[in-house]
Amino acid sequence: MLQKINHIGIAVQSLEATIPFYRDALGMEFKGTEEVVEQKVKVAMLQVGESKIELLEPTSPDSPIAKYLEKSGPGIHHVAYEVADIEAAIADMQRQGARMIDELPRAGAHGTKIAFVHPKSSHGVLTELCQSGH
Amino acid sequence: MLQKINHIGIAVQSLEATIPFYRDALGMEFKGTEEVVEQKVKVAMLQVGESKIELLEPTSPDSPIAKYLEKSGPGIHHVAYEVADIEAAIADMQRQGARMIDELPRAGAHGTKIAFVHPKSSHGVLTELCQSGH
Repeated sequence: MLQKINHIGIAVQSLEATIPFYRDALGMEFKGTEEVVEQKVKVAMLQVGESKIELLEPTSPDSPIAKYLEKSGPGIHHVAYEVADIEAAIADMQRQGARMIDELPRAGAHGTKIAFVHPKSSHGVLTELCQSGH
Repeated sequence: MLQKINHIGIAVQSLEATIPFYRDALGMEFKGTEEVVEQKVKVAMLQVGESKIELLEPTSPDSPIAKYLEKSGPGIHHVAYEVADIEAAIADMQRQGARMIDELPRAGAHGTKIAFVHPKSSHGVLTELCQSGH
């Protein structure tokens, strides 16, 4: 059902301070930065193998990432797995007894469709399904 | 320098309670369970694309994973990146100003060589380099 790890989302205080670790010290390919206004974050993407590292810096104190940083400090915020058919993937998960935050997919960045698993089911790891836009 | 995400290490209270989420609900291929005596953990591996999920259950209250669970609860403990030549990777990282916990690689499971980045350099994410055994 899952094709790969699409990305690991990492909450950071500052993209500028963190990008050099991933780009220069670890040597990942830097794919660019964008602002996601509705989530109140600036995002930097870096490629590693078939997956990406997504660095998330809050742009406002009421950003979900700002709240995460305040509670937990910088660190891994979520893991996103790529699926070919997100409606089928949600149905499969529910058939196996997993609870979803998003029972219907919603729009992510770049034409993707995404759905989050309910934390009651995912044992402490915020888990996202995503289907690439075509 | 990095070839891929080798694995994401996840601290759990119980493998038995957590494996069904990854194997049955997410549909990952279950690769088996083993005990790593020196780390005082039982480990379950599941495949997703080119990467693995490594679930870590402590076997003793003084296991590093038991201490992690006590402090932070279940969740992502570390990310491991695969490199072709770990000595060269460590040297590259140090040349870029990153600090390493392990300045020389040490033996991991299954003939792997591993080295951890110092938390001062990795912005809240415990980061491992690993070179596969041959």
